Amino acid sequence: MAVELKDLAPLLLRKERASGDLDAAQLAIVTNTLRGGVARNARRKQLEQLVKDDPVLSDRDMVFRNHTERYNFGIKKVATLIKLITKHKLTTQEEIQELRWALGENLPLDLHDGMFVPVIETQATDEQKGKWLQAALDYKILGAYAQTELGHGSNVQGIETTAHFDKATQEFIINSPTLTSRKWWPGALGKTATHAIVYARLFLEGKDVGVHAFMMQLRSLKDHQPLPGIEVGDIGPKVGFNSIDNGYCAFDNVHIPRDHMFMRFVKVLSDGTFVEPQVDKVVYLTMVYVRAYLLQILSIAVGKAATISTRFSAARVQGRKGSGSNAGEFQVLDYQNQQLVLFPLIALSYASNFMSNTMIKMHDSALELLANGEEHLFGEKLAELHGISSGIKAWLADHVSNGIEAARRSCGGHGFTLSSNLNHLFSEIVGSTTYEGTMDVLVQQHARYLLKVLLALQTGKRSTLSPNSSVGFLAQASQYFNPTLRFSAQRPEDLDNLELLIEALKVRATRIVVALAQQMRDSNNDSNACMITMTRASTAHSELLLVSTFAKSVEAFPAGPAKDTVSSLCGLFGASLIVQNLNDFRDHDYFSTAQANLARQQLARLLPIVRRNAVPLTDAWEFSDFDLNSTIGRYDGDIYRALVKRAADEPLNKTQVAESYELYLKPLIQASL
Amino acid sequence: MAVELKDLAPLLLRKERASGDLDAAQLAIVTNTLRGGVARNARRKQLEQLVKDDPVLSDRDMVFRNHTERYNFGIKKVATLIKLITKHKLTTQEEIQELRWALGENLPLDLHDGMFVPVIETQATDEQKGKWLQAALDYKILGAYAQTELGHGSNVQGIETTAHFDKATQEFIINSPTLTSRKWWPGALGKTATHAIVYARLFLEGKDVGVHAFMMQLRSLKDHQPLPGIEVGDIGPKVGFNSIDNGYCAFDNVHIPRDHMFMRFVKVLSDGTFVEPQVDKVVYLTMVYVRAYLLQILSIAVGKAATISTRFSAARVQGRKGSGSNAGEFQVLDYQNQQLVLFPLIALSYASNFMSNTMIKMHDSALELLANGEEHLFGEKLAELHGISSGIKAWLADHVSNGIEAARRSCGGHGFTLSSNLNHLFSEIVGSTTYEGTMDVLVQQHARYLLKVLLALQTGKRSTLSPNSSVGFLAQASQYFNPTLRFSAQRPEDLDNLELLIEALKVRATRIVVALAQQMRDSNNDSNACMITMTRASTAHSELLLVSTFAKSVEAFPAGPAKDTVSSLCGLFGASLIVQNLNDFRDHDYFSTAQANLARQQLARLLPIVRRNAVPLTDAWEFSDFDLNSTIGRYDGDIYRALVKRAADEPLNKTQVAESYELYLKPLIQASL
Repeated sequence: MAVELKDLAPLLLRKERASGDLDAAQLAIVTNTLRGGVARNARRKQLEQLVKDDPVLSDRDMVFRNHTERYNFGIKKVATLIKLITKHKLTTQEEIQELRWALGENLPLDLHDGMFVPVIETQATDEQKGKWLQAALDYKILGAYAQTELGHGSNVQGIETTAHFDKATQEFIINSPTLTSRKWWPGALGKTATHAIVYARLFLEGKDVGVHAFMMQLRSLKDHQPLPGIEVGDIGPKVGFNSIDNGYCAFDNVHIPRDHMFMRFVKVLSDGTFVEPQVDKVVYLTMVYVRAYLLQILSIAVGKAATISTRFSAARVQGRKGSGSNAGEFQVLDYQNQQLVLFPLIALSYASNFMSNTMIKMHDSALELLANGEEHLFGEKLAELHGISSGIKAWLADHVSNGIEAARRSCGGHGFTLSSNLNHLFSEIVGSTTYEGTMDVLVQQHARYLLKVLLALQTGKRSTLSPNSSVGFLAQASQYFNPTLRFSAQRPEDLDNLELLIEALKVRATRIVVALAQQMRDSNNDSNACMITMTRASTAHSELLLVSTFAKSVEAFPAGPAKDTVSSLCGLFGASLIVQNLNDFRDHDYFSTAQANLARQQLARLLPIVRRNAVPLTDAWEFSDFDLNSTIGRYDGDIYRALVKRAADEPLNKTQVAESYELYLKPLIQASL
Repeated sequence: MAVELKDLAPLLLRKERASGDLDAAQLAIVTNTLRGGVARNARRKQLEQLVKDDPVLSDRDMVFRNHTERYNFGIKKVATLIKLITKHKLTTQEEIQELRWALGENLPLDLHDGMFVPVIETQATDEQKGKWLQAALDYKILGAYAQTELGHGSNVQGIETTAHFDKATQEFIINSPTLTSRKWWPGALGKTATHAIVYARLFLEGKDVGVHAFMMQLRSLKDHQPLPGIEVGDIGPKVGFNSIDNGYCAFDNVHIPRDHMFMRFVKVLSDGTFVEPQVDKVVYLTMVYVRAYLLQILSIAVGKAATISTRFSAARVQGRKGSGSNAGEFQVLDYQNQQLVLFPLIALSYASNFMSNTMIKMHDSALELLANGEEHLFGEKLAELHGISSGIKAWLADHVSNGIEAARRSCGGHGFTLSSNLNHLFSEIVGSTTYEGTMDVLVQQHARYLLKVLLALQTGKRSTLSPNSSVGFLAQASQYFNPTLRFSAQRPEDLDNLELLIEALKVRATRIVVALAQQMRDSNNDSNACMITMTRASTAHSELLLVSTFAKSVEAFPAGPAKDTVSSLCGLFGASLIVQNLNDFRDHDYFSTAQANLARQQLARLLPIVRRNAVPLTDAWEFSDFDLNSTIGRYDGDIYRALVKRAADEPLNKTQVAESYELYLKPLIQASL
């Protein structure tokens, strides 16, 4: 008798690992590249073990809890986490961050650590720091970051909350003058935070001097009751973040002392004089760092989804190979369409990881320029970093979110089961398409930067661009824009040459940026009428950067199977991006019809090549089963027993008969008995 | 002082309705087209009112409940619904269906009515019907449809559950011989069903005679306890359907009488003789009907999402129009990118509605052919319907699901709040990408049908195709495939000519089908190696059908503003599909580079034209606020008060201080006090 499916699944995963091109040493090369080296990866595992060993922190039964239950359990986790950090004397942000990632969900105090404390550190005067910083670090006060309002999101200039300075009492009076001025969405604002950094429009003698930040106490430190004049609560369940009390808050004539305005870069003196804000360039650089960090989170999220779905697709068989009953069944991973969904996602996880690392390096070298007093170069680098990090963040947040959902659907019915964990991964990450800037706003910032560089080159304001610059390709604009230019590839495998592939991406990006410049001129700079083209320009440049950064990271590998395998993955990533946007390359016959087909053929050709090592390429991330928390993504492939076991945990199964039977079904069934 | 945002929002929606091109009479033309006429629409509203007036059925607080709570409440709704149906003497499936839609969520007995009863009606002998049908119709027995297993989904041939006939006792012995043979996923199987239609592999004297259907009792009608040998339970929470007890079931030597096998089309006689199944063509036609019906559900789901997001985008302002503080803010609906997301979705809701109607008409005319004894024509029509309904279902399930998610993200933070209802709409519909066949399987069926027709034409087996046939364009294959063929449009607005637009879609579909035929020949019919091209062929044909069906429905409008407006929407739909696949049209320079840009320009040109009537075009669906159940999609635009009001319902807000405070936060905050 043939082997049972439940036993076949683990066998198939073992076969995948045995038949790939990477032995343990080669696999380790990939892992160390993804995980920042041997030591850091080992430490990451130690920290994860701390979470796994803790009965509270390792609890993953969130799918059975509603928002209220998840919030209360989330607070229990927060308190437990803080004890763990203290016990193990963890102090570096990096280590605490690893612990947090190991929790597998976002918690109410994430923004206390991630925003509240950093704003005190960077925006408070030394005196203010003396008052608040240690208390915040010790969790004697718990903070929220209250910028967004019901009526206005990322548009800070639309903020309606007001702060009026009263010279007589040396106080600011904070009000929510309209329904839409209530703070809305800040994490931990609803039930957790005792304090908040509140952004409000400041009025001095009735004069509007812009939006500034204030430290406000919201709740009593004795009994947690809201203070007078403060209405605060939870905004209700959301997509993702349901262990967090995203909240609302309205202010009714709340008085706070003058020194509760954050005064490091802007001041209101006791006589009401306004000292204009100094520009703090490091703040902008911090934003770049936050984005680079977000790319890392995105990379891990899509890496997990790709790992779960690839393992499932290797372990799952479906569809007879032939008509005979002994012909066996295809592994789902052998289907071309399945490969087309999953392999670009494996590549995407690598690409965003490499991009994040590169952006952190760029950030660090910019900081160095500043330290060396090279103001002009720093300014240029900052503009570049701000521009590209906007576009890359927008592109990746979108593609990673869509990619995780595509991975989930690729698992058929078992992907729909929450125990696959794919829906949870999606829900906790898809917010990144909105927070820290929506795509529409970000692609505009990116496109405007590209236009500015092009214009500077065209007008001679800028004569050279470093070849290391991410916009270096624009120096070749006239060459790339030339409509007689022809792509040189003659065979699909010519695109294995990553340089050639990247050249095509450069030509495409150039042409769209030049077309955008033309459209902006033609429309008298009506940027709304040019938004579609702006999006295309940002997309084309982001894709160029992702592929070229990927290719550079491949170059750093020592020659060998690991390098070859990751290089194929990079080639597949590039080919898939070209195929998805083929028309851009057909523009003025840069690609011929035959070359367009050749790109499609190259993609189809690379699928079985990547197929050989698909499971090892996801194994290289070294996600633990605890971390993946997925019945169908287990390392050992024992997915069917896991599904059966997890179903037994469903609370409805605690009794044979549900409580609604007596009340509603029995009367129905036995009506005439 | 400027008007407050909360009051501006309703004003803006009123302005939209006043400034569009459609008066009440013109709007009614659109509504009647979408809603199947005045009488049917009026009846729909009456039935919805019955649900709205019922305290149980109108309860929409599902977002605060976990799976167990939703299931038990779902059963309460089922019992209430049955009483309502009895009380109002509703008998037609159409009316009961409208009631069910008005509930806004899927419930445990949906498949009792939708599958269990119909299978008894069509597959049972008259004697069997006598035993089961009335009991099922009266809900004295509650049924599940148990086909899918843990190890095998849509691949029925992989089913592992066994039925061995024991001649001595005249019984079948049903077993789940492996872990993966347990039934998995069937709705209502877990806690509700007393009976199930179970698919099992039938063995007669040890000989496998294929998979057949059996009626099995699972639970006692006295106390609802599972019967001996039956293990049954709920598979746990899922994406969507959480009011339903999707379940598992394993059989251990369960004996059922011989006459519990469904024997209308296949028989096991008392002496163990197997009477081979007769092919029941009507069953295939029923599958087409189920798909047409699903298109209607998809149409309504995306129509609701487009309505909610369009209204929100019209009522929401964000971003200053100029630098002056009085310049006001843009309506989000004025942004080009927002229009690019939403308007194709409005068009999609219309397109799928028209497609569904057309498919039902095709189904009815096929039935007529059968009734008239025109076997050959019936066979051809059935093959056509089966092929195209496969591809259209796959395309629409995917695009509607993705479209609802895109609509949700287009609403920024407020789209993430579950009170927008967009996530619920998504979760309840996205399963359609999997159930009734996954995309991979369906596009292959569609592509194979197209190949078959092409081959029949090329080999002269078929000399003509009715111009009304959905594959009529293939009769022009040699003309469309000619690489010297050039598209005639010279200006963007030339594409307002829907015939021209459709011609382009025909050329594209033809070329991909011909390329697929070539690739299949070249690969010796290795369909797995051709899967990407099969998907492209199915996609191209589905898009051609959707646009041409849309255009035909426009033709039926009386001349006037309604016709012009819906015609623009159709043009926008077609242009957006062309722009998304521009390379296909550039193939062998059918489109020049200039014409590719012209298609982009046409899309951009149509956005502001559709913009004028975007809100009325969604109003035309006449979704009630009760039905949309969305804070941000209200007809009156009073979205901000609705958001504040709904947040107050969040259970966490019942107390000022959450229960986790005393346990975990207080000790933390007051540690050193």
